[in-house]
Amino acid sequence: MFTTVLTEGPVSRVDVARRTGLSSAAVTKAARPFIEAGYLEELASGGRTAPGAGRPANPLAIRPDREYFAGVKITGDDLIGVVTDLRADVRASARHALTGHDVDHVVRALADLVGELLDAGNLRERAHCLGVAVSGDVDRASGVVRYSPFLGWRDVPLAELLDDATGLTTTLENDVKALAVAEQWFGEGVGASSFALVTVGTGIGSALVVNGALVRGAHGVAGEIGHVPVLDGGPSCHCGGRGCVEAIASTEAILTRARLVTGEASLSMDDAVTRARGGDEPLREVFAAAGHAIGLGLAALVNLFGPERVVVSGEGVATYDLFEERIRRTFAAQAFGSAARCGLVIRPLPFEEWARGAAAVAVQSLFVSGSG
Amino acid sequence: MFTTVLTEGPVSRVDVARRTGLSSAAVTKAARPFIEAGYLEELASGGRTAPGAGRPANPLAIRPDREYFAGVKITGDDLIGVVTDLRADVRASARHALTGHDVDHVVRALADLVGELLDAGNLRERAHCLGVAVSGDVDRASGVVRYSPFLGWRDVPLAELLDDATGLTTTLENDVKALAVAEQWFGEGVGASSFALVTVGTGIGSALVVNGALVRGAHGVAGEIGHVPVLDGGPSCHCGGRGCVEAIASTEAILTRARLVTGEASLSMDDAVTRARGGDEPLREVFAAAGHAIGLGLAALVNLFGPERVVVSGEGVATYDLFEERIRRTFAAQAFGSAARCGLVIRPLPFEEWARGAAAVAVQSLFVSGSG
Repeated sequence: MFTTVLTEGPVSRVDVARRTGLSSAAVTKAARPFIEAGYLEELASGGRTAPGAGRPANPLAIRPDREYFAGVKITGDDLIGVVTDLRADVRASARHALTGHDVDHVVRALADLVGELLDAGNLRERAHCLGVAVSGDVDRASGVVRYSPFLGWRDVPLAELLDDATGLTTTLENDVKALAVAEQWFGEGVGASSFALVTVGTGIGSALVVNGALVRGAHGVAGEIGHVPVLDGGPSCHCGGRGCVEAIASTEAILTRARLVTGEASLSMDDAVTRARGGDEPLREVFAAAGHAIGLGLAALVNLFGPERVVVSGEGVATYDLFEERIRRTFAAQAFGSAARCGLVIRPLPFEEWARGAAAVAVQSLFVSGSG
Repeated sequence: MFTTVLTEGPVSRVDVARRTGLSSAAVTKAARPFIEAGYLEELASGGRTAPGAGRPANPLAIRPDREYFAGVKITGDDLIGVVTDLRADVRASARHALTGHDVDHVVRALADLVGELLDAGNLRERAHCLGVAVSGDVDRASGVVRYSPFLGWRDVPLAELLDDATGLTTTLENDVKALAVAEQWFGEGVGASSFALVTVGTGIGSALVVNGALVRGAHGVAGEIGHVPVLDGGPSCHCGGRGCVEAIASTEAILTRARLVTGEASLSMDDAVTRARGGDEPLREVFAAAGHAIGLGLAALVNLFGPERVVVSGEGVATYDLFEERIRRTFAAQAFGSAARCGLVIRPLPFEEWARGAAAVAVQSLFVSGSG
């Protein structure tokens, strides 16, 4: 009930009842504690009305300022932090360089960043929850970073350490899954029972929502579109396989290939992008080949899952002008039958968006038990 | 509640409560109408007891003979029919050659086959439901065969026609999905919240169960592992793509390739199998290449989904001695991290099993509303 109002509101109780399958009376009953706690309010057509006084047709609306949420994305180089309201609208953001990967250092730096953000807005009193997004193998339920290649961490109980350091209740999530939560609750995924979020950049990953729930994998692995093999006998991948999407289309793979075709061992990515945009055909082809590999991976994903929509994003999409046409062409050639009707949204992703995803996870954790 | 007893029973009400999250009292209440209708009974430790007299620890058990179900698989050449009990145990089976693909002819032949099976066992009185499995694009909810390449059908309202011809309530399902239902309710999938069933043969397909539910695809397409592109620039596929698993590993693709490498344009599949088994290296390599393509497709599936288990089956698996080693080797090389822990069960599938899948769909339709 609450999530319907949160993600789609304001909506009338009659509409909530229709969408959730509850009776109108059950919606009224379910809404009461949220109204009493100040999370929801009833609107009248002509304006606001006193709680409890409304009729079933009066819309229920979220009170976004009732509580604030901190969200932080940890990368190898930076901490990116935001404070959002209940609807995951960003109210403040900041970015701190990370000078080391020692666990204590990161915990202290993260607590400082969050403290600073909350104090600047004088929001400490109404903030109780922190979401943190890290790439790699993250166990949300136990709050443990099982393995983070960029940080060099194994089995770090980060949620517990951050609970102590910040005084906030912390939820950890894999960064791509956190972005997917933000999409599912507040973005392209609202109202879609299935969608995929694919991120392209240093690594290539995805999060899949099927029948309204994130696919987590029975053995802790799912959404690894970067390790879908698309080119038999192709380049070796760090995972031990060959011809994986990531071995062709990650930032590093593109740069390696660009240096090879130009014969310039110290070519920078920025230069490669500039020259490709300027019309350098061999370099254009390197980016197009990456787009082709991504298109093949997307076709595999869509032919297997049939999501309603796929969002392709990530820092690699900053150069999507060099990819997009080939991604779309390859996807169209390899999507099976009506699977080709799957909407393909390709869009750059501001870095702050990752931190917003972390905050969205904190919102979700507060209201959905067992969402981990 | 009922499905827990059906698929895992006999189980005590206490256990049912634990597994379903219902209270013990709610289980008792939910069980009552099923006991009254004769589908369930309560067992006492020392033997059977009168309905309603048991305590929460007394196991609930299905009464498999309470009702019988007909299941028919339609292929291009045959109708394969079975009659099963409530637990989808086969009580009788028969196979009729199909002499034409005209809709009226198939409907009549199918009704004759079902009538014969029910009359032989004198089961007509206790059979009310028929499940029918067809390959292709089948809309279970409306009972329409949207497209069946083998039969050359488009938009045939087969369920309605069979309701009239047999007097039974008919549920249509895609044949691979029907097999998956049988696995989920009565086979390898019991107790697994996610698994995949992959069938190899004339076509290559799969059905995926995630979070306990079949993935149907927002646009009607899902599980098309045969159209996962694994060999960039590889052989053209009838779907319009290139390098699809099916373009390398379908029965037809294998035969085409076998004829090419031997230079014998009229080589039969049986001869190719015999000679490969006899040690003919070029022919062995044709089968191994098919196994490799299947292994790549399985790796894509498992890296994206992370199912608990994958069952590989289908008529192509009759020659699995020629595939299996390469399927497993390629899968192991390309599965990402702990996704490799996914159990891979490769097993031949008696043809009758497809018809049993159809009967399982009929069982499911009777008890789960909205299962389509």
